[in-house]
Amino acid sequence: MGLNSNRVENFSDTEAPPLSTSVMQMPPLEVHRVCPPPPRTTSQKLRHRLSEIFFPDDPLHKFKDQSWFRKLILGLQFFFPIFDWAPNYSLQLFKSDVISGVTIASLAIPQGISYAKLANLPPIIGLYSSFVPPLIYSVLGSSRHLAVGPVSIASLVMGTMLSEVVPYSDEPALYLKLAFTATFFAGVFQASLGFLRLGFVIDFLSKATLVGFMAGAAVIVSLQQLKGLLGIVHFTTKMQLVPVLSSAFHHIDEWSWQTIVMGVAFLALLLITRQISMRRPKLFWVSAAAPLASVILSTILVVCFKSKLHGIKTIGKLPKGLNPPSSNMLYFNGPHLALAIKTGIVTGILSLTEGIAVGRTFASLKNYQVDGNKEMMAIGLMNMAGSCSSCYVTSGSFSRSAVNYNAGAQSAVSNIVMAAAVLVTLLFLMPLFYYTPNLILAAIIITAVVGLIDYQAAYKLWKVDKLDFLACLCSFFGVLFISVPLGLAIAVGVSVFKILLHVTRPNTVVLGNIPRTQIYQNLNQYREAVRVPSFLIMAVEAPIYFANSTYLQERILRWIREEEEWLAANDRSNLKCVILDMTAVTAIDTSGIDTISELRKMLEKRSLKFVLVNPVGSVMEKLQESNILESFGFDGLYVSVGEAVTDISSAWKAQP
Amino acid sequence: MGLNSNRVENFSDTEAPPLSTSVMQMPPLEVHRVCPPPPRTTSQKLRHRLSEIFFPDDPLHKFKDQSWFRKLILGLQFFFPIFDWAPNYSLQLFKSDVISGVTIASLAIPQGISYAKLANLPPIIGLYSSFVPPLIYSVLGSSRHLAVGPVSIASLVMGTMLSEVVPYSDEPALYLKLAFTATFFAGVFQASLGFLRLGFVIDFLSKATLVGFMAGAAVIVSLQQLKGLLGIVHFTTKMQLVPVLSSAFHHIDEWSWQTIVMGVAFLALLLITRQISMRRPKLFWVSAAAPLASVILSTILVVCFKSKLHGIKTIGKLPKGLNPPSSNMLYFNGPHLALAIKTGIVTGILSLTEGIAVGRTFASLKNYQVDGNKEMMAIGLMNMAGSCSSCYVTSGSFSRSAVNYNAGAQSAVSNIVMAAAVLVTLLFLMPLFYYTPNLILAAIIITAVVGLIDYQAAYKLWKVDKLDFLACLCSFFGVLFISVPLGLAIAVGVSVFKILLHVTRPNTVVLGNIPRTQIYQNLNQYREAVRVPSFLIMAVEAPIYFANSTYLQERILRWIREEEEWLAANDRSNLKCVILDMTAVTAIDTSGIDTISELRKMLEKRSLKFVLVNPVGSVMEKLQESNILESFGFDGLYVSVGEAVTDISSAWKAQP
Repeated sequence: MGLNSNRVENFSDTEAPPLSTSVMQMPPLEVHRVCPPPPRTTSQKLRHRLSEIFFPDDPLHKFKDQSWFRKLILGLQFFFPIFDWAPNYSLQLFKSDVISGVTIASLAIPQGISYAKLANLPPIIGLYSSFVPPLIYSVLGSSRHLAVGPVSIASLVMGTMLSEVVPYSDEPALYLKLAFTATFFAGVFQASLGFLRLGFVIDFLSKATLVGFMAGAAVIVSLQQLKGLLGIVHFTTKMQLVPVLSSAFHHIDEWSWQTIVMGVAFLALLLITRQISMRRPKLFWVSAAAPLASVILSTILVVCFKSKLHGIKTIGKLPKGLNPPSSNMLYFNGPHLALAIKTGIVTGILSLTEGIAVGRTFASLKNYQVDGNKEMMAIGLMNMAGSCSSCYVTSGSFSRSAVNYNAGAQSAVSNIVMAAAVLVTLLFLMPLFYYTPNLILAAIIITAVVGLIDYQAAYKLWKVDKLDFLACLCSFFGVLFISVPLGLAIAVGVSVFKILLHVTRPNTVVLGNIPRTQIYQNLNQYREAVRVPSFLIMAVEAPIYFANSTYLQERILRWIREEEEWLAANDRSNLKCVILDMTAVTAIDTSGIDTISELRKMLEKRSLKFVLVNPVGSVMEKLQESNILESFGFDGLYVSVGEAVTDISSAWKAQP
Repeated sequence: MGLNSNRVENFSDTEAPPLSTSVMQMPPLEVHRVCPPPPRTTSQKLRHRLSEIFFPDDPLHKFKDQSWFRKLILGLQFFFPIFDWAPNYSLQLFKSDVISGVTIASLAIPQGISYAKLANLPPIIGLYSSFVPPLIYSVLGSSRHLAVGPVSIASLVMGTMLSEVVPYSDEPALYLKLAFTATFFAGVFQASLGFLRLGFVIDFLSKATLVGFMAGAAVIVSLQQLKGLLGIVHFTTKMQLVPVLSSAFHHIDEWSWQTIVMGVAFLALLLITRQISMRRPKLFWVSAAAPLASVILSTILVVCFKSKLHGIKTIGKLPKGLNPPSSNMLYFNGPHLALAIKTGIVTGILSLTEGIAVGRTFASLKNYQVDGNKEMMAIGLMNMAGSCSSCYVTSGSFSRSAVNYNAGAQSAVSNIVMAAAVLVTLLFLMPLFYYTPNLILAAIIITAVVGLIDYQAAYKLWKVDKLDFLACLCSFFGVLFISVPLGLAIAVGVSVFKILLHVTRPNTVVLGNIPRTQIYQNLNQYREAVRVPSFLIMAVEAPIYFANSTYLQERILRWIREEEEWLAANDRSNLKCVILDMTAVTAIDTSGIDTISELRKMLEKRSLKFVLVNPVGSVMEKLQESNILESFGFDGLYVSVGEAVTDISSAWKAQP
């Protein structure tokens, strides 16, 4: 702590008052010393670090200084957000929730059936999944607008990953078991991410990655629907672009013109209603009602023209009644356990990403907060419960949540209303779906996933950040041509590589003084900034780590070499001091410390003074612990570049 | 570019001259605007980025403005450093090189034989490998002190990786083929890293990782030498701690007391000479001569007491003559090709790391530069040539290079002298090794690898950086208990995880003003810094990426919440402005831009002014490209915190 303490005294030893240099118009102020952060023990540091990693939101701050009873109430509200909003719930709010609940039910029923088909599951599973999970979410969830149920991406991924090993057509019972087990593991994974407060794992799916991934998945899913739209019987279960396309065109003999005409007509209808709602958000109900209307209309058409439309495949018999329990179908040992776990983790992370993103989007529109870790636990528990009641992976769906929001939903009660509507359907209306043609499900799926192709976002990525765009392209083509999980892995890899690249090859810039100020800025960026004679002032814009310490050492030496060559060529005064501004060096490791120490020695041999400026807290701590500061001495460390330049140049004047 | 341009005019509109606030003792200066970096096209940016990634050292700078002939000379010198130093070579230098060359030869011959045994190869291969590669390196290499030949770590790893699939005892011919092929691929890999200027790949083996890895490998290797020291015949070929130890103690019946007595005696002798040389660097020749002396002494002992020492195993017959060509033994198709490639890459990267590190260490002691990429090409070509002349993987050995340096080597000629000594040995002295006992090789290996256990470095890691120490421990235990390549992979994973952790959970700090200056510093670090009323000044110490944008948004909102609660509890004036110092935000991606824009909207709803300070060049570029700056307006962006505080507070005074 005594470091630099006698700098000010030293300073006043010089007889003449220090003169301002040509670029320094202001009289030099007193010189401040660099403080290390207050000393902390290893366990204090560790505790601080862990609390920043796991509890950055300080979830218990509400509980501080509260009575025992109040803590209990707060605890209940913390774990069951329903206790938070239920006491203030009013009839007014209920009316809004009923309207929005019925609206999303009209969307959820046809989408549930369709998405179950996408996952190669019996359609009824989709309806089951729209009943139990929303009820559980309404008790545990903290978002007011999330509409819970099956979602397209997770359905697609589950269908792909399971079908490639166990085709549904070969072993339907095993497939069903694996689907429920994967759902269970998805729930366990999601809940434990939330419980262990590891929510940041999903942050590694960057928006760029997701834009590409969603678009790739949407293309694949849409093409797969050619099966339904063209009426093909023998279709590939693979998910890559090439087999899907070749499968569609190798079975031209199976195409059915009735199916094609009807399918294209309904697809056009659905896409037009989607356009209408997008152009005029007030008409959101047009696209919300269209799927159910299409289902009803197409079913009536098939019933009326049964004899003429025999080429059209229909859903067939669906069992009436509530979700049967399925906990006995969970599959905890056997050759496919690893597959179930893997599928669970991938679908879990994807559905979680969608659910959290949707929750946050609508929360920020209405200016309330959604707690990511709590949401993860809610979604995870809802999937664990779902896996025991014949449901597959569910989450918050973007399209239905948007409808819910537009229809004026005020709380999770809209999910309860939706579940009630699904309950009525399950109990009484199932026979009506007997003649619903498969083609309408294909049309509904295409309409839903077309919205996932966000070319505007991709264009913005290209405009702002080329590497982000590359990550986006990688995930898009990875999904299209390789496989869904690998495409995702490649895209995450590209994103991580981008971080590492920035660390491996950080920017180093040369600073100059902005005349008449103590401000030093990048010479390349600020035209008005001027070089200070005899000084080379550099800033490193990255932490100094093992991954870049060699590079930085060489790069700094190159700057010095170039500066010296330039000075020699232009007959300027010699370089005497190298200042390294460490403001943006946000961390350092042992290799970085070695580099600094090595640089100091090399510059000393060349009679160049080497000075560090403004190391941040953690860097200062490491510099102290490694005893490197002693070699820098009292006049090797300054708080700001301005003070360093003023102090060093006045010292030169005093002792030429 | 017109951004903020009328700030100064606005400023002078205020009628009264702006008053200084309580913490601002200095009259406000003019306000400067944030400049974007000069506009560049995408291709310019890409070119700049690529040149920083691949050519940070600007290798062609010497060629600028030179005549055609001079360029040719420089090119020759660039590719063959021998042309650089040979013209100035003198008899004086040659004398030094002869002395050091002979000294390292006396070390290289016994070590060559021993390390070949470590790689499960015939001892003669070790001598071959000490002949051809040093000759090639002396032409291509740029280090003056590197002593080239087989090295312990690479030998160990090659032995392990190959033996686990193809034990030498089962198929010696195939094993030899695979070893040469692995050497070839190691060379190809090394040379292409250098040629493609991807040398930074080896930077990912951080020092912390290597300390742990080397120590783990040294422990394993030493324990494996129990085979030789105890005279065991049936010993495991596995490399993990448990099988090696159990193998040593399950064959107590095979222990030979003569071997043990003689082995322990020579081991003690070698370790003592090592200690002497370490205590007194001038006596380096004691430890340098000891191995050869021990070989001679032990051979004489065995010859003299042949009848009584029948339990001691000896090397046996070695072929006389030069390296036979082995290019016909390279193995380019077959079931083990993948193994050979994998082994080549792992041993290639390890030997490269050692060679480069050794070269850099001695270069920095003598203050000359070693070009990493050129060294990689030299080492790679030398291994490719070696694989065609019966050599296995070679590199610069740390122990022999240290002896070379201490013995006064002046140039790569010492390697030529060493090769000449090995040549003489190969041609005439091979029969002398017939009775050399294996135990002496074990003792030599143990003495060589004991130095790899650098507990002082490990202690320093613990003291300075706990996460580095963790990486060190992971690689140590990974090597001991799992396997050599996996241990290495785990350690690299931990190092990369550390980088990602820093990015995922960056520091956010609150700044205060240091009285009577324009300097703003971390309140927690600088006790003298004081808060500025009505302002919350924050700094983010990391790039803002997808991986931390959610965290940062929540963390910044929590700082604001805590500040507001504290102000309310202490009856202070309300918070009116949040300043975000972006100096240490060295990069931003699209997610980060969304976060900034989101934060601005949220704070606007709460009537808080949100101001950015000092975005660095690349961040400023992205902010401009994404059009987010428009929403910040003229008074939302400042060059320094001081100017922002002064300007905003005087604007408040003017219009209360």
